[in-house]
Amino acid sequence: MPILPSCESALSSLPESLLVGVSGGVDSVALLHALVKTEHKPVVLHFDHGWRAESGEDAEFVRELAEQLGLKYIGDKMRSTAKVHREAEARTARYAFFAKTSKRLGIADLVLAHHADDQVETFLMQLLRGSGAAGRGMDPVSRRDGLVLYRPWLGIWKKEIMAYARKHRLEWRDDATNVDTRHRRNLIRQRVLPYLQKQIGKQVPDNLLRAAEISRAESEWLDALCADAADQSELSVKTLQATPLAQQRRTILRWLQARGAKDISFIDVEAVRGLLENVSPAKINLSAGKFARRRAGKIFME
Amino acid sequence: MPILPSCESALSSLPESLLVGVSGGVDSVALLHALVKTEHKPVVLHFDHGWRAESGEDAEFVRELAEQLGLKYIGDKMRSTAKVHREAEARTARYAFFAKTSKRLGIADLVLAHHADDQVETFLMQLLRGSGAAGRGMDPVSRRDGLVLYRPWLGIWKKEIMAYARKHRLEWRDDATNVDTRHRRNLIRQRVLPYLQKQIGKQVPDNLLRAAEISRAESEWLDALCADAADQSELSVKTLQATPLAQQRRTILRWLQARGAKDISFIDVEAVRGLLENVSPAKINLSAGKFARRRAGKIFME
Repeated sequence: MPILPSCESALSSLPESLLVGVSGGVDSVALLHALVKTEHKPVVLHFDHGWRAESGEDAEFVRELAEQLGLKYIGDKMRSTAKVHREAEARTARYAFFAKTSKRLGIADLVLAHHADDQVETFLMQLLRGSGAAGRGMDPVSRRDGLVLYRPWLGIWKKEIMAYARKHRLEWRDDATNVDTRHRRNLIRQRVLPYLQKQIGKQVPDNLLRAAEISRAESEWLDALCADAADQSELSVKTLQATPLAQQRRTILRWLQARGAKDISFIDVEAVRGLLENVSPAKINLSAGKFARRRAGKIFME
Repeated sequence: MPILPSCESALSSLPESLLVGVSGGVDSVALLHALVKTEHKPVVLHFDHGWRAESGEDAEFVRELAEQLGLKYIGDKMRSTAKVHREAEARTARYAFFAKTSKRLGIADLVLAHHADDQVETFLMQLLRGSGAAGRGMDPVSRRDGLVLYRPWLGIWKKEIMAYARKHRLEWRDDATNVDTRHRRNLIRQRVLPYLQKQIGKQVPDNLLRAAEISRAESEWLDALCADAADQSELSVKTLQATPLAQQRRTILRWLQARGAKDISFIDVEAVRGLLENVSPAKINLSAGKFARRRAGKIFME
């Protein structure tokens, strides 16, 4: 029987030299505390999104916390003068800061405090809002902009983090990252999930967390099976025709993404898959003025 | 661009010699009409679940309809004297009738009227209620009790079937199969899906149908990759250890099912997967008094 991880035991297989993203909210403050408790000495990174008038105070709070713990602190803030940033821009700026700092310090490994509630919300949003692949949630280990991102708490529920924070009498600030994502994520968190629990049963979040984990691991496996084909500059029609339907779809999705196509929908994937049949037009429009084309037994992107 | 199927075009690749399950509800009456329209001459099967006092009238209605269309009709009814049957028992009895009739007539292929709304509901129920695998919905072609089941309308929405039925001035009876599944499925249909559409957007059913189709095709591919291992009487620890996490899970799930284990949960699968590590106990309890055991580098079921 697998033993359920605790806030501390979930951190046991992290690398020694680490960066940690700390917003000042309870999740990342608890993560920082648990890292120190398990004898890590992470460099504390804080990014001020400028979402609230008092967000400079969050930065000050995290800086002081790092100092108390004897840890190095590095902060930065959103350069844009716009009052409200879209979540995507804020995330891009935050990861650019993480990546730049990582390079400067020579530490690639960054720990983030995403937890089981975040995972369930992400999975449900992907499913209900649609995406090129079915929902798969966040990965416990992933790569982005030269960083290796660790999310050791994806199996830990928010309430366990709260219990940990209370037990250790931690102080924290309202999580600034919750402000911007309010509209979409808070709808899921505050309305949709409680409604589903009431209608279907208390176990809905557990079931969704399990489904997300199954999908995530399967997705990783499928990606590995498609990696060689998706890495090529063109796809071979004959080779692709000989593979199962789902492998065609997954290979095309990853190949388009690897060629820089953005916001690939299932319809795009199916359209490119249509190029495998001789009867269909030999050219497909993708988003942002890009095309996929069949010529001499190959599929190209232009 | 894939062309959306119509009620009739979706039937184009069915085999010539067919059985069709007709409850008398609008879905199966429309299916029967569309089959005849596309020059099929199916044998009409009706199973009376005895769920309503007047359900004998459904049988009579279907028998007359078959007669009008010049088709062979075969009916049977639930033998149990219990007033209310559980859905699972009713389904078992219905498929036993289908299988017996199929054998007698020498026709293996059976068409069913399940549609996109059914698919979305099934997928969502599986996800929210939890299952050994993540949700995958129904298959357009599957095998059961020696039958080959075709569900050509999984991509057709109920409203398209209604429009087809009105256009051709069809008559039908209230669908008896909706009565028993009322509690679970109607909760999803009448409350949960409308709520999700209101909160998230009108496109929720489309997104879920797409997710179900992606998952279904991926599941089929993964099953094919695990079939050889799952067919063996025992699992090799060494071979399994060398495969990706998701392949271990999927192989164990299918292997347990092929050995006759019932109601396998994700926890069961993870427990058997624990046998791959030497530190764990070498014997795992499964449901219904069955065990999985590791001995001499193999996993057995007893």
